[in-house]
Amino acid sequence: MNIGIVGLGLIGGSLGLDLRALGHQVLGVSRQEQTVQRAIELGVVDDASLNLTLLAAADVVFICTPIAAIAPTVQQLIHHLSPDTVLTDVGSVKTAVVEQVTPLWHNFVGGHPMAGTADNGIDAAVSGLYAGNPYVLTPIETTPDEAVKVVEEIVRSLCSQVYFCRPEDHDRAVAWISHLPVMVSASLIDACMSEPDPAVVELAQQFASSGFRDTSRVGGGNPDLGLMMARYNRESMLRSLTAYRHSLNQFIELIEQEDWQTLEKKLKQTQLQRPPFLSKLE
Amino acid sequence: MNIGIVGLGLIGGSLGLDLRALGHQVLGVSRQEQTVQRAIELGVVDDASLNLTLLAAADVVFICTPIAAIAPTVQQLIHHLSPDTVLTDVGSVKTAVVEQVTPLWHNFVGGHPMAGTADNGIDAAVSGLYAGNPYVLTPIETTPDEAVKVVEEIVRSLCSQVYFCRPEDHDRAVAWISHLPVMVSASLIDACMSEPDPAVVELAQQFASSGFRDTSRVGGGNPDLGLMMARYNRESMLRSLTAYRHSLNQFIELIEQEDWQTLEKKLKQTQLQRPPFLSKLE
Repeated sequence: MNIGIVGLGLIGGSLGLDLRALGHQVLGVSRQEQTVQRAIELGVVDDASLNLTLLAAADVVFICTPIAAIAPTVQQLIHHLSPDTVLTDVGSVKTAVVEQVTPLWHNFVGGHPMAGTADNGIDAAVSGLYAGNPYVLTPIETTPDEAVKVVEEIVRSLCSQVYFCRPEDHDRAVAWISHLPVMVSASLIDACMSEPDPAVVELAQQFASSGFRDTSRVGGGNPDLGLMMARYNRESMLRSLTAYRHSLNQFIELIEQEDWQTLEKKLKQTQLQRPPFLSKLE
Repeated sequence: MNIGIVGLGLIGGSLGLDLRALGHQVLGVSRQEQTVQRAIELGVVDDASLNLTLLAAADVVFICTPIAAIAPTVQQLIHHLSPDTVLTDVGSVKTAVVEQVTPLWHNFVGGHPMAGTADNGIDAAVSGLYAGNPYVLTPIETTPDEAVKVVEEIVRSLCSQVYFCRPEDHDRAVAWISHLPVMVSASLIDACMSEPDPAVVELAQQFASSGFRDTSRVGGGNPDLGLMMARYNRESMLRSLTAYRHSLNQFIELIEQEDWQTLEKKLKQTQLQRPPFLSKLE
């Protein structure tokens, strides 16, 4: 198959490596000349260009740009495509993307590969990034079955675990397990810095151990990611944050009221409720 | 020196191993016959007993029981001690312990070794548990200098990093970096389970990755620990929780108001504020 990739970072680059290994013809487009060169050097693509016209003959195009650039990229790209070309994206929120892109291109299937590494950019591209990891597809009622089938087949060939769900359900689910934790964790760091006594802050910094390290990790991560989640998954994020505030208030009330029995019950519950979220990590 | 240890779990047992290796005579007391036997077998102590009278000749006694048992243990123990025996504890909250024990025994120095492993009990005891880790001592105005000196010398010989601070400052600091994260993290798990749509819960469980794993870790841990923190460090815990709720509300408001510029600024701040808490973990 002739497969295009727009955006040659970790996600797009790793996709290129796997798709080439599977025998596809892979064509890449980047906004940066340096990335175009590097993608060819690294064997991530068969050919690459700054120009979207390179993708005129593509059967399928993966849009691997940052979320904000997905719809604008599609807008430009469609002038160069034949009408039966299938488009898909890899954005980590789906409702906003599907709503923006579907009116522009009928043959569009929203997608979200849930894989990554700590690194970014074309030089971080690795083979097998998607194998064993969830890859969510979010077709809607108007999405042509044939387009879904084409994307599904490619994604299965990456050895991903394929999930299908509505864009809204995807966004609610990732709000709970990915986007909410960022704000919960950032609030922890922010709260610690509100301590008025500098001596206590210093002691806290000296005493902090693995518990603080882990709970604060995603809140001390890349600000652009946190901002993107809040911006493009705002509704689900606020829905989860409101529920979280309610849970927090319950814990605060139990401690205020010294209701140790109920607190113990709740902590026993959270201990039991956590493992089902970790089954794929074991 | 003749050193007593009451409570032969991970903390007391590991202390015994190190103190014997340093040439001290170590005497252990446990409530369980099995632990007494095991402590002798493992070489954690020179002698052990169910009976506190074993410690009559001790120069120093480390109380390594759970927090709730510290003051009751001291109450019983003091009938067997000579007046110049120095007592110290290893409880993870200090204000409540120091307030309860100081009226019972003048020669008491509050302590908190900030070390541990994932395991518990005498069989988890290891040499060198304290080396390189913080060991906080919290003498108050009435604590005899000589008693502080004795405990400090032993603790330094374990190669711990010794910190001195007021019990209240200790409790405020650990509230931020140890006790608050438990409630923040437990609230995250609790909130996820409030999702009304079972299909979304299932997707969330399938999609959860390292971000959720890390942020939820301490909230899904041993309920007894969380309960103990809330119970014995209630005041500092509520102080931190209230500040945390304020930080959380600020994040929620920024997202509600779509104030992306300020949100980005705050996320950049939390990214910069985290590393000073991790310096000893690098």
